[in-house]
Amino acid sequence: MHTPVTGPVRPGAHSAATHRPASVARITDGFWATRRRINAEVSIPEGPQRLEEAGNLANLRSAAEPGTAPAFSGDFQFQDSDVYKWLEAACWQLADTPDPGLAGEAARIVRLITDAQSENGYLQTYYQLGGGEPWTELGWGHELYCAGHLMQAAVAHHRATGSRDLLDVAGRFADHIDSVFGPGKQVDGVCGHPEVETALIELYRTTDDERYLELARYFLERRGHGALASGTDRGHDRDPGSAYWQDHIPIREAQEVTGHSVRQLYLLAGAADLATETGDVRLRQALERLWTDAVSTKTYLTGGMGSRHDWEAFGDAYELPSDRAYTETCAAIASVHFSWRMALLTGEARYSDLIERTLYNGFLGGAGLDGRTWLYVNPLQRRAHTHERPGDQTSRRTPWFRCACCPPNAMRLLASLPYYFADVAVDDSGLRLHQYATGEYAGGGLAVRVATAYPWDGTVTVTVDDAPAAERTLALRIPAWCEEFRLAVNGTPVRERPERGWLRVTRSFRPGDTVRLELTLRVRLTHPHPYVDAVRGCVALERGPLVYCLEEADNAGGLDGVVLDTSTAPTVRDRPDLLGGVSTVVASGRRLASDEAGWWPYRTEAASADRPVELTAVPYYAWANRGDGAMRVWIPQRR
Amino acid sequence: MHTPVTGPVRPGAHSAATHRPASVARITDGFWATRRRINAEVSIPEGPQRLEEAGNLANLRSAAEPGTAPAFSGDFQFQDSDVYKWLEAACWQLADTPDPGLAGEAARIVRLITDAQSENGYLQTYYQLGGGEPWTELGWGHELYCAGHLMQAAVAHHRATGSRDLLDVAGRFADHIDSVFGPGKQVDGVCGHPEVETALIELYRTTDDERYLELARYFLERRGHGALASGTDRGHDRDPGSAYWQDHIPIREAQEVTGHSVRQLYLLAGAADLATETGDVRLRQALERLWTDAVSTKTYLTGGMGSRHDWEAFGDAYELPSDRAYTETCAAIASVHFSWRMALLTGEARYSDLIERTLYNGFLGGAGLDGRTWLYVNPLQRRAHTHERPGDQTSRRTPWFRCACCPPNAMRLLASLPYYFADVAVDDSGLRLHQYATGEYAGGGLAVRVATAYPWDGTVTVTVDDAPAAERTLALRIPAWCEEFRLAVNGTPVRERPERGWLRVTRSFRPGDTVRLELTLRVRLTHPHPYVDAVRGCVALERGPLVYCLEEADNAGGLDGVVLDTSTAPTVRDRPDLLGGVSTVVASGRRLASDEAGWWPYRTEAASADRPVELTAVPYYAWANRGDGAMRVWIPQRR
Repeated sequence: MHTPVTGPVRPGAHSAATHRPASVARITDGFWATRRRINAEVSIPEGPQRLEEAGNLANLRSAAEPGTAPAFSGDFQFQDSDVYKWLEAACWQLADTPDPGLAGEAARIVRLITDAQSENGYLQTYYQLGGGEPWTELGWGHELYCAGHLMQAAVAHHRATGSRDLLDVAGRFADHIDSVFGPGKQVDGVCGHPEVETALIELYRTTDDERYLELARYFLERRGHGALASGTDRGHDRDPGSAYWQDHIPIREAQEVTGHSVRQLYLLAGAADLATETGDVRLRQALERLWTDAVSTKTYLTGGMGSRHDWEAFGDAYELPSDRAYTETCAAIASVHFSWRMALLTGEARYSDLIERTLYNGFLGGAGLDGRTWLYVNPLQRRAHTHERPGDQTSRRTPWFRCACCPPNAMRLLASLPYYFADVAVDDSGLRLHQYATGEYAGGGLAVRVATAYPWDGTVTVTVDDAPAAERTLALRIPAWCEEFRLAVNGTPVRERPERGWLRVTRSFRPGDTVRLELTLRVRLTHPHPYVDAVRGCVALERGPLVYCLEEADNAGGLDGVVLDTSTAPTVRDRPDLLGGVSTVVASGRRLASDEAGWWPYRTEAASADRPVELTAVPYYAWANRGDGAMRVWIPQRR
Repeated sequence: MHTPVTGPVRPGAHSAATHRPASVARITDGFWATRRRINAEVSIPEGPQRLEEAGNLANLRSAAEPGTAPAFSGDFQFQDSDVYKWLEAACWQLADTPDPGLAGEAARIVRLITDAQSENGYLQTYYQLGGGEPWTELGWGHELYCAGHLMQAAVAHHRATGSRDLLDVAGRFADHIDSVFGPGKQVDGVCGHPEVETALIELYRTTDDERYLELARYFLERRGHGALASGTDRGHDRDPGSAYWQDHIPIREAQEVTGHSVRQLYLLAGAADLATETGDVRLRQALERLWTDAVSTKTYLTGGMGSRHDWEAFGDAYELPSDRAYTETCAAIASVHFSWRMALLTGEARYSDLIERTLYNGFLGGAGLDGRTWLYVNPLQRRAHTHERPGDQTSRRTPWFRCACCPPNAMRLLASLPYYFADVAVDDSGLRLHQYATGEYAGGGLAVRVATAYPWDGTVTVTVDDAPAAERTLALRIPAWCEEFRLAVNGTPVRERPERGWLRVTRSFRPGDTVRLELTLRVRLTHPHPYVDAVRGCVALERGPLVYCLEEADNAGGLDGVVLDTSTAPTVRDRPDLLGGVSTVVASGRRLASDEAGWWPYRTEAASADRPVELTAVPYYAWANRGDGAMRVWIPQRR
């Protein structure tokens, strides 16, 4: 059996955080349970076969037996990380629900990894199999990035199984890194792709070895001084500049998020871990500033981040194109990691508001309903009749990608999802529910059961299973989207106002007590900030935490020239038959007459002729599960 | 002295074209004369120094003396092409205006090139200096691309000087290529970057050697069968797919333009040359279809083409973002090349409508007013406070680029510009003026002088200097933007209607006859097609052929939140002091109150509070000559 799980972030003994993960968080039914069951029954079990087909496991076998080695398989230096991320997913899944078959697969892969490790602790099959000299291509080599994912898998493996086997492998690699990197050592520099920072701090939390915290601190402080600036390693003919990998300015001085979005967000997650462990106030303030910059000017309605295909990067403030949104699935995951750390560090609800939006929309859209297909890129618009263009394959649901970072990353987030749903104050004064899903949550002295049909229905019933004979606070997040709610305790209405997003019910709870929260769900017409040029004159449909979209499959005649008539209120239509069961939104619209005339698409008169049409919108997360038709989140508004 | 110049496209003896270039085309004063003087006095003379600094000339010296060779300089296989394009520019300039200093520089570089050529005729310093085996990296090697630019420089050199020296070098290289490429020969394939096709046909026209026409035909027909599909040569870790280099479908079958925009447009220019020489009707129809697809769905208001930074590519239909417009300067040039060939082939005015728009806006914006700085990327919007992001340096005016294709390309278009301004019917029935600039034009039996202050004033006076004693037609293009015009012949008003864009004056002209055309210039408020999502709810200001833009430099307080009040008509204000002398457009606007409140840029209510502001717009071509401030062509319209 396995030891209790405390989740993917466990602030250490000297933490400056105001909150820590709940001691129990289990999702047992409802919306997320369905998606997690598909993850457990389809995605994770099929992972090893994908990793076999893509050559990742062959690389590990080859590294384990140097004499018999075939050439390195795969196109990227970081192929090993796909294995580590899958393994981490498998371990979080095992921590939630024992499964002997999966446990056996995980054990087999742990042995493979163990055998592949070099004598000195080094482990990256690309360089072990002749790809070059280790630690000479910091820009693109991804060695520390892979090491980080190994550490995270090892922590999950330890928590799930109690075994130290993989933790020892990760520790040996971390020790090797510690012997190589630092001022005056063999290498004084950082990895082109952050990830090892947050991983080292988790390793520190798990092993209590402060060297790992110090090493993470070194990598975080070393960054921002242009060490990677010239970074045109072999195989890369374009120099992205130091902002690409956030090496242009130290984190504490940065005024805005920039560069490769996943790199930026993983870096910030690591920095949040450091601030949590050290109590560094200036660092925390920088992180709050950067989070606000990202969310207020560079985040899509879906929570997706990263506006540019070119360099997979954050764009300018308010540069948020729907069609060419990059919004990599991994960036959504990284955003959840960063925000969750900030939620624990600061206790503020807005971080979980963003997590909710991201989980239900920008992240979940990346995972196909079948558990077998994925999106790498998650645009908010796809036009009709789009032909295949250079680089477009990443916005089609695909079983696995040439660069397959996203699928196993999505698996590990789904497998670890419950940990993001509840936390407790560090003074054990109570339990907070960040997200609403039917399940069991405990911590801060309280153990509760939650029952809800969220996000289709706004009613959340919390039943206390266990409580101490003393006052405790059950805190419920009132989502930022929520304009109206009602609260009842043991059936009695209670008028309580939320403070900064938290509705607090404080009392001496007794087993059997119920707290019933009714969040009113209305279809909302959402307007963009006037600086968001890309969707000017459009509105989006939202309901609860869900962003909706129009898909060609539900709207005969396609989406070209469709406008929304906002003079009539949209209605909700439940469709248990559709897309695994969804509530659709039905709205009045018009379709502009198509304009076949001349060859020049700019005129001195605006188009106007149109005819009425009924529009049906489905939740964005379910898009692209019925072929390659047109889709749009932002709908032109009729004037 | 030099032989008469017939321009950069001279359809051959068996041409299917309806028109051919005028025999004389000289711009002597006015708008373009100023820009061409800067080109002649600053840009072209400083070119050799740039090519020296960037190492291009050192590469040729090293190839000429293999024993003493230093390593190859520069980051790209195609560095030689910058030299060839500069040389072509110098030669067109010499053809227009003799200049002993420039002639000496050109002669020096012709000798360098001659000395660098291998015994067998091969010439590409990257591969000669150890870059690898010739003809093994067709995808990225650019060998035929460079060969094409050498041929074009050689044709220009021959026309400008009468010398065959460089023509012989180009011929030897072409002969070598002919010996290597073809079915059953050493290589059966095509170059990743088209260019050699149009060049070979120009070489055929100049030498009358039909092998070059056949070789061009082979390259054009061979393309579209996936020969480049796997094209991940050394140094390229991403596979763009065969559509990137238009190798996914034969030209005759293609329904839309796609992939790398410059590659696509150079390919189409070459195909237009082939259709011109062979009379191939299906090919011509395919070209008309592709031109219409490009212009009606994938072209910016400025004439710029190429919507995506990622792969420098055409996007989907109506995917035309202002901020992330790629619209490479070279793509504007390539568009002019393609359209001019179509204009000669079909006789239709719409091709020159697009050329005019492109020259005055999308192309000219790429050339700094100082003649020393260039844009590679020509967006229609730049936001305020833009920090440097990965890849952004190409949209800042820069003396030379690491990939310096654009500056010498712009030089050669400016140097050869007059050739695009007039042509004659192949039956010598008269002269057509495609563009209006003060100067001298002759052909089809007519010799005329043009006087005009175009584009600031719409009056064009044509005076006949020479005419035969027979009827001839002087055809004047009525621009597609023009809603009203007046015509007078020898002072007498004439009511003539244009046919498909051409206003024809047919008579027995006598020397001294005048034809006076008054094109009414009004400020136009231009709306986008409703499918152009990126600029919905916006209007653009145009006047004559000029697209206008707002720049921060003229609009205190910046452009954030600015909207145009279209209830008041804009006015024109001449500003001889500004940007080399421009007419500005002054309009009424409002500025939305900035919204400093929350951290989430999407609301259930649209913003509305605003205050009045006067807006001043300048011609787009002059933007970014006063620092890095905000700019926008499309202005949100107040409702």
